[in-house]
Amino acid sequence: MEKEMITTDILIIGAGPTGLFAVFEAGLLKLKCHIIDALAQPGGQCTELYPKKPIYDIPGFPEVLAGDLVNNLMKQIEPFQPGFTLGERAETIDKLDDGTFIVTTNKGTKHHTKIVAIAGGLGSFEPRKPTIDGLEKYEDKGLAYMIKDPEDYRGKKVVIAGGGDSALDWSIFLADVASEVTLVHRREEFRGALDSVEKVEELVDQDKIRLVTPAEILDINGEGAVESVLLQHNDEAKRMEVIECDAFIPLFGLAPKLGPIADWGLEIEKNAIKVDNTLDYQTNIPGIYAIGDVNTYPGKLKLILCGFHEATLMCQSAYQRIFPDKRYVMKYTTVGGIDGFDGSRKEAEKAVVKKIGNKQNV
Amino acid sequence: MEKEMITTDILIIGAGPTGLFAVFEAGLLKLKCHIIDALAQPGGQCTELYPKKPIYDIPGFPEVLAGDLVNNLMKQIEPFQPGFTLGERAETIDKLDDGTFIVTTNKGTKHHTKIVAIAGGLGSFEPRKPTIDGLEKYEDKGLAYMIKDPEDYRGKKVVIAGGGDSALDWSIFLADVASEVTLVHRREEFRGALDSVEKVEELVDQDKIRLVTPAEILDINGEGAVESVLLQHNDEAKRMEVIECDAFIPLFGLAPKLGPIADWGLEIEKNAIKVDNTLDYQTNIPGIYAIGDVNTYPGKLKLILCGFHEATLMCQSAYQRIFPDKRYVMKYTTVGGIDGFDGSRKEAEKAVVKKIGNKQNV
Ligand SMILES: Cc1cc2nc3c(=O)[nH]c(=O)nc-3n(C[C@H](O)[C@H](O)[C@H](O)COP(=O)(O)OP(=O)(O)OC[C@H]3O[C@@H](n4cnc5c(N)ncnc54)[C@H](O)[C@@H]3O)c2cc1C
Ligand SMILES: Cc1cc2nc3c(=O)[nH]c(=O)nc-3n(C[C@H](O)[C@H](O)[C@H](O)COP(=O)(O)OP(=O)(O)OC[C@H]3O[C@@H](n4cnc5c(N)ncnc54)[C@H](O)[C@@H]3O)c2cc1C
Repeated sequence: MEKEMITTDILIIGAGPTGLFAVFEAGLLKLKCHIIDALAQPGGQCTELYPKKPIYDIPGFPEVLAGDLVNNLMKQIEPFQPGFTLGERAETIDKLDDGTFIVTTNKGTKHHTKIVAIAGGLGSFEPRKPTIDGLEKYEDKGLAYMIKDPEDYRGKKVVIAGGGDSALDWSIFLADVASEVTLVHRREEFRGALDSVEKVEELVDQDKIRLVTPAEILDINGEGAVESVLLQHNDEAKRMEVIECDAFIPLFGLAPKLGPIADWGLEIEKNAIKVDNTLDYQTNIPGIYAIGDVNTYPGKLKLILCGFHEATLMCQSAYQRIFPDKRYVMKYTTVGGIDGFDGSRKEAEKAVVKKIGNKQNV
Repeated sequence: MEKEMITTDILIIGAGPTGLFAVFEAGLLKLKCHIIDALAQPGGQCTELYPKKPIYDIPGFPEVLAGDLVNNLMKQIEPFQPGFTLGERAETIDKLDDGTFIVTTNKGTKHHTKIVAIAGGLGSFEPRKPTIDGLEKYEDKGLAYMIKDPEDYRGKKVVIAGGGDSALDWSIFLADVASEVTLVHRREEFRGALDSVEKVEELVDQDKIRLVTPAEILDINGEGAVESVLLQHNDEAKRMEVIECDAFIPLFGLAPKLGPIADWGLEIEKNAIKVDNTLDYQTNIPGIYAIGDVNTYPGKLKLILCGFHEATLMCQSAYQRIFPDKRYVMKYTTVGGIDGFDGSRKEAEKAVVKKIGNKQNV
């Protein structure tokens, strides 16, 4: 069955901080946004690579955890109700005769849009996969490289592999959801936040997580879906063991790759998309913009605060492209307030004009 | 007596949000900043015009009061110990043979600097003055158009004139500091935040503020300093009254004027300074930059978040100008931490590498 076409004013590729803030600026201009991201959750590098670490150079925040920054941005854009296509990679683009675009993901989801804003960061986050023959045939059939919805694993037997924060944190989370959690790592040492490591230790002691180290998963078995994995203990005996399970989740980290966007006919320089920063961060293809870490221009800095500025100027230009005849007059949010697409309204309290007391002239 | 010369790496003209954040970005590059502002306190428009109003478009803040944003910025730059010359207007600039600059204020304070960053917003905030002959000779001698340090008024008799938030708020504040507060306004109605209006009403009822409306101050008297003011009641009788006082503070609002900077030989367009935004927001005079509301370039938006970006790129360029032979390698604050000039250090917690438990291989 054909999936329904998603339509929007601005299609944003990448739900990192830049893409998220673009939704807000577009919303002020009454433009609707939809975001595609290869990751299962919004936040880009902040969420995927360092959610619990402090950032010190977001203006107005002496210190903010990367994960909290993303949560704040999600809250800030809430009134503008962006759509999300998560866990899918934007793969191909077609320009229609009327100047609009259709962007299709690796899973076939189609998006029809007036403007494309690529906020793809260092690229689409792609999982590092274990080297197991025939791996692909289990993908989305018990084998997953990221967890989209933990509820998918309720009451299931889960094997997680990996030695970093993701493996630790998901083992902790699923210990209460899955019927069985086995955590496999090829070394005895884990690398992660102290409290995650300690929590796993605790759950292992309580037999809520089975820990197998040093060990490796060598093979997957099952008819059409994962039924078991083959584990090799990395001790002297190299003992083999079959672990029955419904799901195998290798969490070896995700690495960004510019990927298919590199073939869209955009001018690329040093793995980034060239833009004209004097005006609006538009690429060599009119209607396609590149903002945040993914773009390059003389003097470019790959900083979050720069992405915010670029997103803002981009939206102004997108507005002009969509409404060539309208003259947009910028209003300060403090003065004009915020009108959400959900009917919500935020505004500053008005000053009162009031006569005071009755003691004057005494 | 000659005042001592202040020396710095970057002299920032304007303590609005843009100028303040520039201190932070300069600090990351180990450059020292000094800020001049005509206002008595930092914050620019945010503090002077709408400190208690919410801003909705600062990235990462679904809502933040303008005054809180400034407080946050002050906290963020604290480790970099900026110097301040407040309540003075940058008046003249001289370029020395070695490419450095001397900037002198209207009060004769001299600043020697390698780089000048004009973050002057809509201009230097200048008070609207009452029309009283010979006003100037009482300036700083009991007559003030803004309050630098409320302690100056401890135990004194103070007459405040005005009908807006400043007049209301300072009357409230000084009611507990001065020995006598008289609030004079030419209308019976005040215009301000509801709670300020109500608080003044309360203090009037408690006889802590004497309110005289509708009325006007027509003259100042005193030998070398304010000793009394002449008040005219705007009733039918136009009754005159002499109020003895140590201080007369007309708070009729401050309006920004580009002022003397317009004569520094910079390219000006529509009351703003033209900059080359493709790179670093430098003006036509090398070594002088213009950032924030004060600059203009194609696509310019007068928004706080844009000032933050401009300040950041400007600092990189300033660094290159000061150290033409050094190659600066940007480090993320999350990764490199923050080293304050005061010896303070902020840094992210490191990940631990740790062996877990003793149940493995069971
Ligand atoms: C450890 C670390 C510390 C950092 N510290 C700081 C700091 O202190 N200050 C600072 O300013 N910056 C810091 N950064 C950099 C900061 O995280 C980035 O500048 C920021 O995340 C860029 O935001 P973005 O939205 O442009 O891109 P990203 O955050 O990279 O997000 C891009 C998103 O686009 C998605 N994507 C790309 N291509 C596709 C596609 N074809 N289809 C679907 N999705 C796609 C990716 O999956 C990704 O989620 C740090 C980075 C790291 C790794
Ligand atoms: C009511 C109102 C609501 C607003 N709402 C928003 C909003 O919602 N979002 C948003 O992004 N922006 C908003 N703005 C605009 C925002 O306040 C400005 O963009 C911002 O203040 C600009 O910062 P700045 O640091 O560049 O300059 P300013 O804040 O203007 O500060 C410049 C400072 O430089 C000083 N100065 C200038 N020349 C000299 C000199 N020669 N000597 C000494 N000092 C000098 C001035 O006294 C002033 O303090 C609003 C503005 C107003 C008035």
